Amino acid sequence: MSIIINSPQNTQIKAARRLSQRRYRHEEGRLLIEGLRLVGDAWRSHVYPLQLFYNAELRPQAAELDSLLREMEEQNVPTFACSEAVFAHLTETVTPQGIAAVVALPQLPLPPKVTLVLILDEVRDPGNAGTLLRSAEAAGADFVIFGPGSVDAFNDKVLRAGMGVHFRLPIRVCSSWAELKGLIPADLPLYLAEAASQIDYDRVDWRKAAGLVVGGEANGAGAEMRQLAQPIAIPMQGNPESLNAAMAGTIILFEAARQRRQQ
Amino acid sequence: MSIIINSPQNTQIKAARRLSQRRYRHEEGRLLIEGLRLVGDAWRSHVYPLQLFYNAELRPQAAELDSLLREMEEQNVPTFACSEAVFAHLTETVTPQGIAAVVALPQLPLPPKVTLVLILDEVRDPGNAGTLLRSAEAAGADFVIFGPGSVDAFNDKVLRAGMGVHFRLPIRVCSSWAELKGLIPADLPLYLAEAASQIDYDRVDWRKAAGLVVGGEANGAGAEMRQLAQPIAIPMQGNPESLNAAMAGTIILFEAARQRRQQ
Repeated sequence: MSIIINSPQNTQIKAARRLSQRRYRHEEGRLLIEGLRLVGDAWRSHVYPLQLFYNAELRPQAAELDSLLREMEEQNVPTFACSEAVFAHLTETVTPQGIAAVVALPQLPLPPKVTLVLILDEVRDPGNAGTLLRSAEAAGADFVIFGPGSVDAFNDKVLRAGMGVHFRLPIRVCSSWAELKGLIPADLPLYLAEAASQIDYDRVDWRKAAGLVVGGEANGAGAEMRQLAQPIAIPMQGNPESLNAAMAGTIILFEAARQRRQQ
Repeated sequence: MSIIINSPQNTQIKAARRLSQRRYRHEEGRLLIEGLRLVGDAWRSHVYPLQLFYNAELRPQAAELDSLLREMEEQNVPTFACSEAVFAHLTETVTPQGIAAVVALPQLPLPPKVTLVLILDEVRDPGNAGTLLRSAEAAGADFVIFGPGSVDAFNDKVLRAGMGVHFRLPIRVCSSWAELKGLIPADLPLYLAEAASQIDYDRVDWRKAAGLVVGGEANGAGAEMRQLAQPIAIPMQGNPESLNAAMAGTIILFEAARQRRQQ
């Protein structure tokens, strides 16, 4: 029988817990992911946990949890049983499902040639960011850049909203404009989703390499991005606030996918 | 100075409060809407409140609230000042903004001819329903039908997610299949958004009159709808669960709008 971690002061627990802060995640290149769904998604994407924590009291009662843990133990993942209180202390969610893992911060390789990249500029809502990541994957974007001023791509809520996309789609978090510009070819045309523009989004030739920029919920894109990107509009009826950042980005990403299928 | 309602047992308060239940809303044809945003949206859509309740303690401190109330009082809307406790009792939100109104349940007239109708079949998530309503308006759908098994279109959370669309776009809530069928021409082609189908959504000729059916988050559309509607798919890469009901519906609605602009 394995030892059960009973103290929240345990070194491993403390080290894992501080990964809920953006700074530590990026400094240490490690991530704490929670829940059966997300840990399972990572595992199925061949992400090998550095440490696996579980609620010792819950394991015997939860078949799905037990089965995933057995699989991991067979492959020598270091697993740590925790008391219910320690496990609750470790995780952010209100009703933890009894499983959490520390994994290396995903840094999937970028494709050699950019065809379609999504750039989030000052998108602060984690739900919108997660939805945009899922749409980008589904529409076949190469990778997604989180520009300065956006929510952290590896924030707990973005991870949950992303439903595993973080382990399948290359993502880059940029803390500066220089870093962002270094990720895309200097001549890549950038299009900014805006409410007001003379150019409709479906008039753009998306069969050519391009970047789509989605601006923030409150004030749209920042000043730097406005200088770089061509505004494009989604023609719509009624209230111009009807489409939020996630919906607007999704519509344009799928227009790009549609055009590319017809090439 | 007006009288302040101090008791949650007040007849008006009791009558307004029970409108949080679906049954009373539809039986009485009345709706309780909360918050500056929604009450303001309704007012700007020329919806005249039957009763207007406000938090007497908040009014002098909140300029926007005070200004909307003045406008309504000038037009003889019956307004009722409530104590903070009574107001909190009346409303569902955790941090009420000090304003709530009873209005007639919107029943905007249907267009004489159907060109594009959205049907929600067993969509239970209020956020998805609100998003779909907003997309339907923005894409120019004629009206939206909430089929049996869907969340109530006038549920508090759907109202909030809809951001005022309920007062601009005709909506019909059907409690039976007979009722639903009575709302659309018998020969209207229906298309059901599905993950698996041989027909891509952009191969449909959306310039012709049509109905788009979006099924529920858990199990898709119900058995009755599956017999009536032609499944169509959104081709996508990666995880087939990437698009939720709201995103899938939004993509197809805007493909319909795109085709119609090119007519």
